[in-house]
Amino acid sequence: MGGLKRIAILGSTGSIGQQTLEVARVLKGKLSVVGLGAASNTGLLASQIKEFQPRMVSFNGSKTDLRRSLSPGHTSPPKVVTMEEMASHPEVDLVLIATSGKAGLAPTLAAIRAGKEVALANKEVLVMAGAMVMAEAREYGVKIRPVDSEHSAIWQCLKGEQRKKVARLLLTASGGPFLRYPAKKLEAITPEQALNHPTWKMGRKVTIDSATLMNKGMEVIEAHWLFGLPYSRISVVVHTESIVHSMVQFADGSIKAQLSRPDMRLPIQYALVYPDRHFNPQLPIMEWDKAMALNFEPPDLARFPCLRLAREAGEKGGTYPAVLCAADEVAGEMFLSHRIGLVDIARLVADALDHHRGIKRPSLDDILEADGWARRHAKKWRNR
Amino acid sequence: MGGLKRIAILGSTGSIGQQTLEVARVLKGKLSVVGLGAASNTGLLASQIKEFQPRMVSFNGSKTDLRRSLSPGHTSPPKVVTMEEMASHPEVDLVLIATSGKAGLAPTLAAIRAGKEVALANKEVLVMAGAMVMAEAREYGVKIRPVDSEHSAIWQCLKGEQRKKVARLLLTASGGPFLRYPAKKLEAITPEQALNHPTWKMGRKVTIDSATLMNKGMEVIEAHWLFGLPYSRISVVVHTESIVHSMVQFADGSIKAQLSRPDMRLPIQYALVYPDRHFNPQLPIMEWDKAMALNFEPPDLARFPCLRLAREAGEKGGTYPAVLCAADEVAGEMFLSHRIGLVDIARLVADALDHHRGIKRPSLDDILEADGWARRHAKKWRNR
Repeated sequence: MGGLKRIAILGSTGSIGQQTLEVARVLKGKLSVVGLGAASNTGLLASQIKEFQPRMVSFNGSKTDLRRSLSPGHTSPPKVVTMEEMASHPEVDLVLIATSGKAGLAPTLAAIRAGKEVALANKEVLVMAGAMVMAEAREYGVKIRPVDSEHSAIWQCLKGEQRKKVARLLLTASGGPFLRYPAKKLEAITPEQALNHPTWKMGRKVTIDSATLMNKGMEVIEAHWLFGLPYSRISVVVHTESIVHSMVQFADGSIKAQLSRPDMRLPIQYALVYPDRHFNPQLPIMEWDKAMALNFEPPDLARFPCLRLAREAGEKGGTYPAVLCAADEVAGEMFLSHRIGLVDIARLVADALDHHRGIKRPSLDDILEADGWARRHAKKWRNR
Repeated sequence: MGGLKRIAILGSTGSIGQQTLEVARVLKGKLSVVGLGAASNTGLLASQIKEFQPRMVSFNGSKTDLRRSLSPGHTSPPKVVTMEEMASHPEVDLVLIATSGKAGLAPTLAAIRAGKEVALANKEVLVMAGAMVMAEAREYGVKIRPVDSEHSAIWQCLKGEQRKKVARLLLTASGGPFLRYPAKKLEAITPEQALNHPTWKMGRKVTIDSATLMNKGMEVIEAHWLFGLPYSRISVVVHTESIVHSMVQFADGSIKAQLSRPDMRLPIQYALVYPDRHFNPQLPIMEWDKAMALNFEPPDLARFPCLRLAREAGEKGGTYPAVLCAADEVAGEMFLSHRIGLVDIARLVADALDHHRGIKRPSLDDILEADGWARRHAKKWRNR
């Protein structure tokens, strides 16, 4: 208690990674950034290294470029290690996985097996390999800390409560920018319209998944793994204001909700300093000094079938969620490059799930193979 | 754990008392009613005794009447004891104080001094004597369990959280039936209109206090004592739907809220079985299958000055809250008997507070004397 927590951030140049560093900057006396990992954004990584002086970096780009970006003035360049090395390094207390796609899988498993505190912002890890990751986490006594605002809300609402008294999880969904669009109008959505999310600042992939509600469907799968509830007891409620980040209903009918102005730095900070809470002047405070309405409504599965597809893939289990993930990623790219329409994403994903021959208790290799199969299958899909 | 909790209910024939017995009826395997106390409703008390077979009763009415109501068929009438005897009886684990007015003070102190679990539904106890009651509770290691839906909500939101990380309590208020009435129209309210509360089924006094927001003002004072926060960090937010029962804002800006359909049996049950939760088929479940709006707005202190008066009395402390309470009770009776208008209640209470010579650290006698003075003073008040 009170000591400096040494954190490693995998995916430090992405949106979550950058916001994590903003939190670390404010909570300097409590958090020490000892590792940074990025895929390729050399310039940003170099400036992060200059500011936070981590002992090690993980980096996929050119090391010469990185060294050049660091000098002049940076006499001791950090040691370059793999993501797995960083995730399991003895001088790391907490690993924040903010990579995207399946890149997060191996370092997450490495961090768990090294008994680290693991803060998970990478959706695919639990969607693709939830059974395996949670089994490892149980074996090594690691509690996965969610970073997503929805799962953080549930986690906060569960604090002090008995898990066996949880009756239902209520995941809130902003509904995306096309919540009120009739089916006809959804057919004509352009990538430019879809990338214009009303509330959260997010990456392109998440923004498209948010427009189709696939994002929420994946969060249902994540919630299933994180909190150990059957799909029948995980509901989605559309809440356009994105103030209530999710809710938990207990055995006695009492519901707890977590609220805040939307700002990812709050769930990030909570995951870093849990079970404590700290004042951070950069985090928004709700004022309640003006009239405000919080609206809730059930999601329309007819217009947003991705939510249903994700739930079905989750219930089937095995390799199906990995296929959902991979097909959705390919479909999103096809949509962004104007090759298919937004509503085709669900059709493409449904087609991949239909054609997949699932494996019930897959190994990591099985999962990665299903991922590869789904990508190949998805790329061949044509709208008839 | 798992054993039968022996409860005594003081005020068993009132609204809270009756609902407590409804909970006890459902949770028969967990709760055993060993004591019932009522002021005078012989018929209802007799039928409660027949059903729950308590070992003792406390009763202000005629014992002959009670015995007559009990026979035939009731061979062993329960022992008649005083409220204080019941509250401190060795065969009682939890005492629920659901009396009204200052009648709850002595049995609450008796229960605390006997180290009982104390569930408090009587507003006046903390409003009149919060400093003393909380000091005794600390001394005897007793945690007061709130029964009010608002304080129960805060208590639930605090579960698992550190008290020192609480930034603000947000008490919700239905706003009463006259929330939208312009000042002019408030002048003409009749007792019949005021008794018609939109959401909660409550006694007459509480209903009037709810129409003037004095009720909420007193809850601010109770929250101050129950949760140990200064008045500057206790806010009131009007929330007409009475679904969010109150909220807690933490150091990091995160807010937790507790929600349910309005039903007093939920906070009653929570106070009885805390820290556990139990399924009770009679408690309402929120469905989220229809569109729903939850509205919030700041209270209008100009039209509802009782809220401001209560806060001021709370901040002054000493005997002032007792004067607020007593003057308000007299004013409510005068309003119900058509002697003064609804808006005169605040004027009368303000007048009593203005003329009171407060005592900073009052004894119980000082408090009761201030109560008596305020009643006499209030009865003389005439609208000019």
